[in-house]
Amino acid sequence: MLKPAQTQVPIVDIIALRWSARAIDPNRSVAHENLLALLEAARWAPSCYGEQPWRYLLWDRLHDPDGWEQAFDCLSEGNKVWVKNAPVLMLSVAAPVFRTTGKPNRWSQHDTGAASENLCLQATALGLVAHQMGGFDAAKAKECFAIPDDYVCMAMIAIGHPAHPSLLEGELRSREEAPRERLPLGECFFQGAWGKGIV
Amino acid sequence: MLKPAQTQVPIVDIIALRWSARAIDPNRSVAHENLLALLEAARWAPSCYGEQPWRYLLWDRLHDPDGWEQAFDCLSEGNKVWVKNAPVLMLSVAAPVFRTTGKPNRWSQHDTGAASENLCLQATALGLVAHQMGGFDAAKAKECFAIPDDYVCMAMIAIGHPAHPSLLEGELRSREEAPRERLPLGECFFQGAWGKGIV
Repeated sequence: MLKPAQTQVPIVDIIALRWSARAIDPNRSVAHENLLALLEAARWAPSCYGEQPWRYLLWDRLHDPDGWEQAFDCLSEGNKVWVKNAPVLMLSVAAPVFRTTGKPNRWSQHDTGAASENLCLQATALGLVAHQMGGFDAAKAKECFAIPDDYVCMAMIAIGHPAHPSLLEGELRSREEAPRERLPLGECFFQGAWGKGIV
Repeated sequence: MLKPAQTQVPIVDIIALRWSARAIDPNRSVAHENLLALLEAARWAPSCYGEQPWRYLLWDRLHDPDGWEQAFDCLSEGNKVWVKNAPVLMLSVAAPVFRTTGKPNRWSQHDTGAASENLCLQATALGLVAHQMGGFDAAKAKECFAIPDDYVCMAMIAIGHPAHPSLLEGELRSREEAPRERLPLGECFFQGAWGKGIV
């Protein structure tokens, strides 16, 4: 389903076309080459002092069904309903400190978000769904996968090929078919002074 | 200057071509339509519960030289050396709480990073430089521009048209001409288990 962003001026296609679909084809795995493209896109995101403070864990159901299941078990019940069809799961994690100095990196989560956006845009370009979720048990994920204490789990990401919205039921289907929405530009983007919406 | 990312598999052009240049043409302003495109790209980034927890302040030297100067004065001395040529400055800011519930939004900085990456990629597509910086006085910026206490200043962003690296001197010029580098893929991207680098 195409739900292009409604914008005042044209923007890049993959940015306009990226959205967080939930209808994922349960019968198609994702080629390893495509997964590598998602990771390479994330890898080349910008970061403060070039720190690259992001870490990603990936589980491919085809090759590692047990790992995939463990990751899946960390999701909220609401997400499990549709993520069950996703052949690949990822988890984005922010590193706490700068590698060279050991000092706290206050841009770590920010930069991880940038890397994940690259990943999602690359997925869009490849005709894949990449849907980030905050609804998961981060403490459980850290324990399951021995993620060091001071790292911060940011998002689980469901990845796969899109399917028809009719794969979903009820509320999930309605949300899949609803138009995408954003606040008016001037609510979040200010010119010259705080709160002075740009026009 | 083109310094495309070196990747194992092809990735989207604008992701491969985006980099944080410092040589900016002091004689070219940025069309308002192009600035709107940068903001629209940011606006359509994904965010947890669709919260859009990012805020951006923009100063266009052409129309608001005093505001631009105030923003410029918040930069570190090292950044001032090259940012002096940038016709437009922006500041990305992360909102602290969810708009509906008033509860802390732990994805706020992460999502702001995603929005800024969209902005930078849109700049790349338009042939513009968008260079994010952590080197600025956030407390000073908050005071100057009456940014509410609980908001978090993330990055100043220098925006303009690219110039030849010869505009820069010494160390800055060397960095401009040096190849871009990233850690090997397996250092940050793991398959199935923490620390098990993907191949």
